[in-house]
Amino acid sequence: MKHPGFWKMLTVAVFMALLVCLQAQEHQGHVSIILLGATGDLAKKYLWQGLFQLYLDEAGKGHSFSFHGSALTTTEKGQEFMAKVLESLSCPKDVAPPRCAELKDQFQQLSQYRHLKTSEDYLALNKDIEARVQREGLWEAGRIFYFSVPPFAYADIACNINSSCRPGPGAWLRVVLEKPFGHDLLSAQQLATELGSFFQEEEMYRVDHYLGKQAVAQILPFRDQNRKFLDGLWNRHYVERVEIIMKETVDAEGRTSFYEKYGVIRDVLQNHLTEILTLVAMELPHNVSSWEAVLQHKLQAFQALRGLQKGSAVLGQYQAYSEQVRRELQKPDSFHSLTPTFAGILAHMDNLRWEGVPFILMSGKALDERVGYVRILFKNRAYCAQSEKHWVTDQSQCLPRQIIFYIGHGELGSPAVLVSRNLFRPSLPSKSWKEVEGQPGLRLFGRPLSDYYVYSPVREQDAYSILISHIFHRRKGSFITTENLLASWVFWTPLLDSLVHEVPRIYPGGAENGHLLDFEFSGNQLSFSQQQLEQLVPGPGSVPKPSDFQVLRAKYRESPLISAWPEELIAKLANDIEATAVQAVRRFGKFHLALSGGSSPIDLFQQLAMGHYGFPWAHTHLWLVDERCVPLWDPESNFQGLQAHLLQHVRVPYYNIHPMPVHLHQRLCAEEDQGAQIYAEEISALVTNSSFDLVLLGMGPDGHTASLFPQSPTGLDGEQLVVLTKSPFRPYDRMSLSLPLINRARKVAVLVMGRMKREITTLVSRVGYEPKKWPISGVLPASGQLVWYMDYEAFLG
Amino acid sequence: MKHPGFWKMLTVAVFMALLVCLQAQEHQGHVSIILLGATGDLAKKYLWQGLFQLYLDEAGKGHSFSFHGSALTTTEKGQEFMAKVLESLSCPKDVAPPRCAELKDQFQQLSQYRHLKTSEDYLALNKDIEARVQREGLWEAGRIFYFSVPPFAYADIACNINSSCRPGPGAWLRVVLEKPFGHDLLSAQQLATELGSFFQEEEMYRVDHYLGKQAVAQILPFRDQNRKFLDGLWNRHYVERVEIIMKETVDAEGRTSFYEKYGVIRDVLQNHLTEILTLVAMELPHNVSSWEAVLQHKLQAFQALRGLQKGSAVLGQYQAYSEQVRRELQKPDSFHSLTPTFAGILAHMDNLRWEGVPFILMSGKALDERVGYVRILFKNRAYCAQSEKHWVTDQSQCLPRQIIFYIGHGELGSPAVLVSRNLFRPSLPSKSWKEVEGQPGLRLFGRPLSDYYVYSPVREQDAYSILISHIFHRRKGSFITTENLLASWVFWTPLLDSLVHEVPRIYPGGAENGHLLDFEFSGNQLSFSQQQLEQLVPGPGSVPKPSDFQVLRAKYRESPLISAWPEELIAKLANDIEATAVQAVRRFGKFHLALSGGSSPIDLFQQLAMGHYGFPWAHTHLWLVDERCVPLWDPESNFQGLQAHLLQHVRVPYYNIHPMPVHLHQRLCAEEDQGAQIYAEEISALVTNSSFDLVLLGMGPDGHTASLFPQSPTGLDGEQLVVLTKSPFRPYDRMSLSLPLINRARKVAVLVMGRMKREITTLVSRVGYEPKKWPISGVLPASGQLVWYMDYEAFLG
Repeated sequence: MKHPGFWKMLTVAVFMALLVCLQAQEHQGHVSIILLGATGDLAKKYLWQGLFQLYLDEAGKGHSFSFHGSALTTTEKGQEFMAKVLESLSCPKDVAPPRCAELKDQFQQLSQYRHLKTSEDYLALNKDIEARVQREGLWEAGRIFYFSVPPFAYADIACNINSSCRPGPGAWLRVVLEKPFGHDLLSAQQLATELGSFFQEEEMYRVDHYLGKQAVAQILPFRDQNRKFLDGLWNRHYVERVEIIMKETVDAEGRTSFYEKYGVIRDVLQNHLTEILTLVAMELPHNVSSWEAVLQHKLQAFQALRGLQKGSAVLGQYQAYSEQVRRELQKPDSFHSLTPTFAGILAHMDNLRWEGVPFILMSGKALDERVGYVRILFKNRAYCAQSEKHWVTDQSQCLPRQIIFYIGHGELGSPAVLVSRNLFRPSLPSKSWKEVEGQPGLRLFGRPLSDYYVYSPVREQDAYSILISHIFHRRKGSFITTENLLASWVFWTPLLDSLVHEVPRIYPGGAENGHLLDFEFSGNQLSFSQQQLEQLVPGPGSVPKPSDFQVLRAKYRESPLISAWPEELIAKLANDIEATAVQAVRRFGKFHLALSGGSSPIDLFQQLAMGHYGFPWAHTHLWLVDERCVPLWDPESNFQGLQAHLLQHVRVPYYNIHPMPVHLHQRLCAEEDQGAQIYAEEISALVTNSSFDLVLLGMGPDGHTASLFPQSPTGLDGEQLVVLTKSPFRPYDRMSLSLPLINRARKVAVLVMGRMKREITTLVSRVGYEPKKWPISGVLPASGQLVWYMDYEAFLG
Repeated sequence: MKHPGFWKMLTVAVFMALLVCLQAQEHQGHVSIILLGATGDLAKKYLWQGLFQLYLDEAGKGHSFSFHGSALTTTEKGQEFMAKVLESLSCPKDVAPPRCAELKDQFQQLSQYRHLKTSEDYLALNKDIEARVQREGLWEAGRIFYFSVPPFAYADIACNINSSCRPGPGAWLRVVLEKPFGHDLLSAQQLATELGSFFQEEEMYRVDHYLGKQAVAQILPFRDQNRKFLDGLWNRHYVERVEIIMKETVDAEGRTSFYEKYGVIRDVLQNHLTEILTLVAMELPHNVSSWEAVLQHKLQAFQALRGLQKGSAVLGQYQAYSEQVRRELQKPDSFHSLTPTFAGILAHMDNLRWEGVPFILMSGKALDERVGYVRILFKNRAYCAQSEKHWVTDQSQCLPRQIIFYIGHGELGSPAVLVSRNLFRPSLPSKSWKEVEGQPGLRLFGRPLSDYYVYSPVREQDAYSILISHIFHRRKGSFITTENLLASWVFWTPLLDSLVHEVPRIYPGGAENGHLLDFEFSGNQLSFSQQQLEQLVPGPGSVPKPSDFQVLRAKYRESPLISAWPEELIAKLANDIEATAVQAVRRFGKFHLALSGGSSPIDLFQQLAMGHYGFPWAHTHLWLVDERCVPLWDPESNFQGLQAHLLQHVRVPYYNIHPMPVHLHQRLCAEEDQGAQIYAEEISALVTNSSFDLVLLGMGPDGHTASLFPQSPTGLDGEQLVVLTKSPFRPYDRMSLSLPLINRARKVAVLVMGRMKREITTLVSRVGYEPKKWPISGVLPASGQLVWYMDYEAFLG
């Protein structure tokens, strides 16, 4: 039997355990927030207010807090500064002044300044936190370190936190990082690797404060809550364009030391506008509140972005910029900066949802207004049978239909979500967004404001307050993961590299810019609408027309020679091929075209794909002149070039495409697989007399053509139509049409481009028929026509 | 030696020969113009005036003329009528009244009425013409017979002309025909065959008077003279849409006996609007004044037109129409006409120039205004960096850019060509077109008239005057050849047939139509924008969403069964395939999908092609479950269905497409070509464990699946992966995956649709594993999943 005291003790123990348990339920633990760079501008302007807001929102819910402002400033000065900042904090409108004073007082008591520099400082901080937690009978939930410091200071701080200031087991660590996150892919990778040696991915919160702006943060919830309308609309069939815009009126004066290193693309487009782009373009996760899914889909959106080229951008610089740089950075009078202060970018997504939809990103300083917005303009797919004067705003499907996430400023003056009334009445969370009446007389995006359903936030909130709350609640979807950061740099770095020497267009600034910065797109290419200042209606007409060719006609090896600058030469050749094709189809019902690989034909393929609407592709058979013995999907394969630059863009029936069978029975060009014989049979069966309508050849610097190289034991004569050959270059094994087959063609065109070809061009002009030495000299169509196409560099050197 | 008189005679002879020669040069011969139906409305309103105009234009240029009005009316009455008409003729404004009276007098003297009915009448006419020509010492150049009579009278007249009234050798015959040219393809063919037995193609001039309207006649010259601007613009990259519109305010009252037989499509769209469409869409001939080239290119434009389907049209009927028909045609009160008086049509051209560009054709009676126009709206490809309030009309590329051929009436009140000032300043022939100032305050097509360059004809001319001149000058490009006529009926007849029982939307007429007749398009489908009268903002949301499926889940042969209405079933299957694909690509980097042929999968292919943006096509390998032993390009080939309905619309790399090698060495499924083994090898090489990620099967009414038929000696068991089989139906020879291979798949879906399958569905639900009798019963994936997809008709009967 147990001692009666035992029961008593047990009762007490159980009671105490329950008590602890109840306390634990009530008390969610202590959170320490350390603001590094507590005396900086950002901290002063936004971060302390954000932390105060967090305290107001969360303190009543079971957490206890301590706030540590730290910097390199001495303790006295720091304390003084902090006292000032904390005094200036403001409460939300609905808090009465006495209550506000009380709350500020509480917050001030929980906040203290400390000097943080050496590892001892961090060790001391760690001890202080631990001591406090113990002293007050709390347990530690976690620590947030907010890095509001320049990137060069990151490594030291990170190292100190990691080694001396991590919380104990069971408590979390979150470090918050502010941009810039590198200057290009390489520097971003280095920074990421460095940080990765101190922190785990889940511990890092990279801030892009645009993700905290209310209209931006609403994009995904809006897409989610209006699925029933948007599911059918949010794709290339319905969306005409997406504009992601951030315009500023201010210039970079006073900040040129920063700006000169970054420029507008790194400052705004690579981060803010790109993040918005992914929110608009990503496949919508089933559950948008799962941040793992959101980040995953965002990454996929990055992967679908088509690479940017030099022509994807237009750049400007406001007139006063160079002078400001000279003054602020003590540069000589001769100095002219190439840093863009304005950029327009055309992006495309290579997926089925967005293929062909232009995503226009634009930002600039010294423009006519300050405004930020994302505008999704839908295609007009209606015809309205009545005269316009009878159209009723919310009924006519012929009036513009658009959804705008209005980030702020501009004529509206506040964040908003706008949906055209002829589109649908949207659903927004009524706790945080309210429908508002527009100001009468105001027009936005071509229509009076009354044409839209307009929603504004019930309470306007600063982006940092929102993000600090998200950090606290571990909503990682609002932050930039390492993967996403690097994906963004992968996207932007090639463009930035290609633009290094690009001279931006100078603009006067403000409303005086007129139409100087308007830009337009054609395919992937962006250009300013006004080509020159005096030419106000430039018109299109950039496509070369036959009459425009500056073409030299001469003879070469007793055959016609056509010579021109590369662009005109390709245009002329494409025109000639089309004419030959049209004639062949008219006469025979089909056109047999044999094409060479290599780099020269790529421009030709693109020209044929984009500019030749009358080309009878449906009746064209495509053959290969030669092929490398690699699988067809290998980037080295000639066929792969044909596929990427031509076949993807035109409609040639599958069975009219005749790749060389270099890959049979999972082997490459094995004699016993008889690939050459199979191809020869196919030609004999389909091409009348094995006489191609047109064979396009090139010429190598050694005088080779097709894959027939000097001294080749096969293909230069004899009966064989198709042969296996060896190249002196990798990949060595090749398949090629033979000279006798080529010479049966009705027409042979030889395309020779670039100054590398100058020497062989001269040499071959002098030699006779010596195919063993120079296979190209053996090209002599028996009853067909031979035409040489050489650009000036190849022909005139 | 010759007699001296010989020289004299010779001199005289030479002199006379020279004289004759000179006369011949001066006198271009006599032209007789016979207007059949000379007392009819058309003749009275337009044709006599047109003939008078011809006389004014041409009489001074060496021809002599005689004009014969003829009809079935008695001679006296006819003469009386003609005298009245001829008296009412008017001269151009620039002819002074005395001179006009003189000219009219001359014309009246050359004109006479004659009764033409029997072949004797025609013989007499012939003799009279011959006698007159001889009497006046003329020679005959040609005869024009203008048929202004109902089509039922054509055959008789044609027969009489051909047998009794052809001019002698060396003189030409032209017969001019007025629509309707048939009621559908068959009747048009019959009429054409009949006429073809009397006249040669070059003798026939079929009139579509729209081709004589000045703005329409200007389309090709405009395209030609503005090539330098339009060459780059006139294509799918730049054109957003083309609208071809003819609106009337009048209704059909008094004409219902005609209208009831034809309706708006036959009355306006099949002819006028289609002709305009071809002028806009055709490839521009190098030489637009060659009518042979124009007609040839027009025919090619017809061939590029995508076939219309029932969903390509919306139909309406003004409210009073049925009552008018009842009254005029003595129909009972219960009669309701289905004849459309309003139609909107969406047409597409399947060529590279126009692919994807909507051509909207619309015409109707009892609308809010009378107007005709062709509007080419260009895409907005610009972003304007300034706020709209700073945009300058002729500089901003963000304002609409359009070219309008304004046929007449409407707010402008006259024919015109309008070109947006931000597009280019067009070139028009200054002799016939002049630039005009717009009326202030007038807005057209969304912009003030001052936004356009506006050109009007120097002299407004009636369409018939222009066409009569073209007939005289043998400008056949302005007329409808037999080939073009039949091509137009080939295009329209299937639509007309499919709409026979379609109930048109009733509209009140005039401005009260409101937005009732607005329509919009989605893919190839047109629909009215207002679904129901009370639902004013319909919103899109027509795409079925997973949550909307009315899907029955059950078991069939112990495997999951999914049953629904066909549309939902296909949507569900497409969703499931996409989910499987996404999962496979995520896990293995690729997705191996084997597809069956036949008709059921076509809807599935279209659904996958159009509605599934997230489908990982670039990583999908497509295999065939079975194939018919026909060339791949044969319409019977399963691969051909796959190509037409899926491959054309998505981007699967060439080398991921695996058609069955049924056609090797120019033979079909020859054992010795080892096609089945080759396919099996390819599968083994590329598909891990030869285990497809998904195999899609069907089930035949005899229980066959793939091309495995009951009692098949191969493919039901054994080692072979791919087999040659025999079908009880043509084409007999097949290639098929074997059951053992199918059963290695990770997932097998069987799609069964239509009530024809009801019996076998019931039967197969009861049998065990008996593949010899019912091959489908042998589908039992060893470690994979089997799912049945049956529509309600197949499953519930």
